[in-house]
Amino acid sequence: MTEQLTVQQMAERLLAADNILILCHKNPDGDTLGCGGALYYALRALDRTAGVLCSDPIPPQYAYLNLHLYKGEFEPSLVVAVDVAGIQLFGENNRVPEFARHVDLCIDHHAGNNGYAEYTLLDAGAAATAELLCEVIEAMGVALTPHIADCLYTGLATDTGCFKFSSTTARTHRVAAKLVEAGAHLEELNTLLFDNKSPERMEAERIARNHLEYYLDGRCALIYLTRDEIAATRVDPADLEELTSLPISIAGVKVGLTLRQQPGGSYRISVRTAKGVDACAIARRLGGGGHGRAAGCELLGNLENAKSAILAEVEAELNAREEG
Amino acid sequence: MTEQLTVQQMAERLLAADNILILCHKNPDGDTLGCGGALYYALRALDRTAGVLCSDPIPPQYAYLNLHLYKGEFEPSLVVAVDVAGIQLFGENNRVPEFARHVDLCIDHHAGNNGYAEYTLLDAGAAATAELLCEVIEAMGVALTPHIADCLYTGLATDTGCFKFSSTTARTHRVAAKLVEAGAHLEELNTLLFDNKSPERMEAERIARNHLEYYLDGRCALIYLTRDEIAATRVDPADLEELTSLPISIAGVKVGLTLRQQPGGSYRISVRTAKGVDACAIARRLGGGGHGRAAGCELLGNLENAKSAILAEVEAELNAREEG
Ligand SMILES: [Mn+2]
Ligand SMILES: [Mn+2]
Repeated sequence: MTEQLTVQQMAERLLAADNILILCHKNPDGDTLGCGGALYYALRALDRTAGVLCSDPIPPQYAYLNLHLYKGEFEPSLVVAVDVAGIQLFGENNRVPEFARHVDLCIDHHAGNNGYAEYTLLDAGAAATAELLCEVIEAMGVALTPHIADCLYTGLATDTGCFKFSSTTARTHRVAAKLVEAGAHLEELNTLLFDNKSPERMEAERIARNHLEYYLDGRCALIYLTRDEIAATRVDPADLEELTSLPISIAGVKVGLTLRQQPGGSYRISVRTAKGVDACAIARRLGGGGHGRAAGCELLGNLENAKSAILAEVEAELNAREEG
Repeated sequence: MTEQLTVQQMAERLLAADNILILCHKNPDGDTLGCGGALYYALRALDRTAGVLCSDPIPPQYAYLNLHLYKGEFEPSLVVAVDVAGIQLFGENNRVPEFARHVDLCIDHHAGNNGYAEYTLLDAGAAATAELLCEVIEAMGVALTPHIADCLYTGLATDTGCFKFSSTTARTHRVAAKLVEAGAHLEELNTLLFDNKSPERMEAERIARNHLEYYLDGRCALIYLTRDEIAATRVDPADLEELTSLPISIAGVKVGLTLRQQPGGSYRISVRTAKGVDACAIARRLGGGGHGRAAGCELLGNLENAKSAILAEVEAELNAREEG
């Protein structure tokens, strides 16, 4: 249904257009926003009219991207989605549904991209869409300015946990080197992106760590936060996302679980696994899903019930693995 | 007193030698040990006899480096120090002082290297000695095997906090790309090096976070651990080093302080600062020292006295900075 493009073909389609609307995904992260900024400033360098649109507000820590948000000031003749894996991820606000009905171009790195756009540049081997977009911008003949480099570095660094995640490749590091040479403000960006935790988030993490529990001979570690605890800290729930990597960072732990109670009372469970343990298999049995090393599900009922249910599936998966 | 060598000259001196003893620094870190392993296996590839020597035991998490420790099986005709900034850092055990009396070659990246070796390759712009040693090994004409790449990646990743510290440059990323291409096991290494925290360390961190205090309108954050708390967790004190980066990672914090009570009762204070605040100036006024963004000092007396003393200097430095 979608036609796959090469980097060169994507660059040519962008060069042929004007009045370009760039769509980011909802609950925007550093990759979708960094790509939005990088593509916008690359198009501006070519004197094209462009704008960035996102269904949700831009988190304040990304203010430095200096995104030019689309306010209806031109009639889009080309719609480009960056880092958006599926149509359901565009969101419902800011006139986004109106433009998401027909997406001309899509640049993405999600293996599960469902081909909603007319033309797609998909590279699931890229650690971030920014890694891929860097090549597109070069193919467009645009010089990487320090600001474009900052935007792309933001995507690269946030999607890889600062080059720590297993998605990081030699190409990721080579692109990072190129961005630093182009003037990316590595020191300031790393501080802003990784050493900038709010006191509210610190307080929530303190409580979660006080709730750390080990199960199955230390092969499973679990933390949790109730909705009352979350409310009391006044933390932005988006800031709790990173906590999900905490239990799996402990020596000997094969399955790390993070239980966050939702406003409605149910428990959202994030499952993170060591290499060789299938997180998705665990979550799927409880009606959830995800990837091999990171998955999730949501369970009704109280904390003790949620714990028992997920721990039973963790045990089954660990046992199956040992027998297999 | 020492003669500075280029990468090429260092490679030539290594190629001309046999029976080579490689010295690491005491309290060994990933960089000194990774370099020890990389240089050993590069020399072995050239059929040279070599061995690695360190005054302290090799921490178990570095077992995969498979260091060939020198046991007196040959008479060293060349002594090479890797990542050792000064003679006082060699340590006193394992016959190290005997060999450290005359060091032929030194490869290092510490700006403060005091030139104790006969010939030195010093590049303070390298984020890790491993970054520099990679060039030396290539100049020696040795192909980077996956294991040599693992050793060098260990040095690069540990000295840069996985490419997060401000010492990271375009060259650092370019060397990382080369090591991954050479077969470095990036996923396994990052898990081993960064997601492998002992339960004892987690418990110590939990306690330290329960002691988190803010001062000076949130511009200073402080954590502490008493010797009784440290003893009760049975944590390896070396594992507490990383905690010193915790207070400075909070939004708005300009000075992060970590107080660890020593077995003798005194408080060792680690000072970490945001860009533009001089950590060394703060520590120096209390008899300590260090670098611009990371420094330390040790204070006698009880916790309250140690806190008051350091907070007074932090306030003085922050005020001086605002006036300056
Ligand atoms: Mn992405
Ligand atoms: Mn070093």
